[in-house]
Amino acid sequence: MDGVGAHEAIVESPEHERELSELPLDRIEQVLTAYRDRSLALGRDRRTRYVLVFKNHGEWAGATQDHSHAQILATPVIPSVAAEELAGSRRRFEKSGRCVFCEVMERELAEGSRIVSREESFLSFTPYASRFAYETWVLPRRHASSFANASEETLRGLAAILKETLGRIRSALARPDYNFLIHTAPCAEPDLEFYHWHIEIIPKLSRASGFEWGTGAYINPTPPEEAAERLRSLSPAEFRAS
Amino acid sequence: MDGVGAHEAIVESPEHERELSELPLDRIEQVLTAYRDRSLALGRDRRTRYVLVFKNHGEWAGATQDHSHAQILATPVIPSVAAEELAGSRRRFEKSGRCVFCEVMERELAEGSRIVSREESFLSFTPYASRFAYETWVLPRRHASSFANASEETLRGLAAILKETLGRIRSALARPDYNFLIHTAPCAEPDLEFYHWHIEIIPKLSRASGFEWGTGAYINPTPPEEAAERLRSLSPAEFRAS
Repeated sequence: MDGVGAHEAIVESPEHERELSELPLDRIEQVLTAYRDRSLALGRDRRTRYVLVFKNHGEWAGATQDHSHAQILATPVIPSVAAEELAGSRRRFEKSGRCVFCEVMERELAEGSRIVSREESFLSFTPYASRFAYETWVLPRRHASSFANASEETLRGLAAILKETLGRIRSALARPDYNFLIHTAPCAEPDLEFYHWHIEIIPKLSRASGFEWGTGAYINPTPPEEAAERLRSLSPAEFRAS
Repeated sequence: MDGVGAHEAIVESPEHERELSELPLDRIEQVLTAYRDRSLALGRDRRTRYVLVFKNHGEWAGATQDHSHAQILATPVIPSVAAEELAGSRRRFEKSGRCVFCEVMERELAEGSRIVSREESFLSFTPYASRFAYETWVLPRRHASSFANASEETLRGLAAILKETLGRIRSALARPDYNFLIHTAPCAEPDLEFYHWHIEIIPKLSRASGFEWGTGAYINPTPPEEAAERLRSLSPAEFRAS
């Protein structure tokens, strides 16, 4: 591994006070288009093996800038978190012949209690084994493993569900600090049948402590069903800004 | 795995304002004796596979109580962080025939630049690949894999180096929040030749952000040699309380 890579910041708005979910829909789409275009461009460098898009919002989430922004990292290795997720998804696929994320969405739709928002092309829900209170995942409903290959239409759908899901979280939890991360396939393998790109949103409601450092396990005081119910219960007037 | 286990808190002092390193030496020894005695007692339950002693000091470290305390967890599984460390140490032992922690201490003593404190029976140093600024490890110099089997004499030595090391950190970083964790062998295997119990101290000077969540990698702005030099440079009058 060479010590090469890239680190870019995407400034999401000219307005200092507004966060991503408070921007108009077409502006969120522009932001997501920037995420995708830069992911593609950075991935074209043959030394880049992985591109990670993430957002730190607020001091508790590790942000050092108040102004709404995201970060893109291009790395010459596949980070261990991504490598483990890819390996686990592959193992599951070898057993069941299906993408585990497609399977999970099917079950979540059938069950219903953890759904936050269901749109034509996207789903957001609080995962069954949520590590954190109000942890929420956003997935494209049609199988696709690479965020960098998302179409304009996909980004339009993503903008809508992201505005709604982040808006519900913002409103329910009184503007919490949060991280989100786009989990995607390695640059060289954009079409994996066993992997599914998605966004993981983690509101920072508590601090990782010695317990998490020492065990790799997580304490979550809020069952995902309770979190999803609270997020669903908000009226559009409560969570829609702009 | 059954959902069994134990969770105990150890209140370290009757005084609300004092932190562990500010207690007199014999009181720190009493606290460590309580850690050990409860580790032993909890480990005797045949359902307990691992006992973790840890400390969250301050809000940024996840503490919900100001009053100086530690926590002890007994779990019916070996936590993944411990399992990975044990597996890595075993692999190394199979190659080199030596305990990797003994090897590391030998090199640190020869090199010198990362040593924080060197006592007859204990060593504290900032590890070569420190994940966090001022991350500091404390190890018994003689090979031993289980904290629960530490002798009175060992605990006396540990009290001294812990008071000094935590005192230097407290003074250099202006009373930072911190976690510490005792890494030890599983209850059923107290005498592993490939593993070495130790304490990892992590001052909370920055927040884990999306980068750490997304990659499993860490950004550390302070080289361990610089941290160790700063910690060593304090005079006893600066870091000794009581």
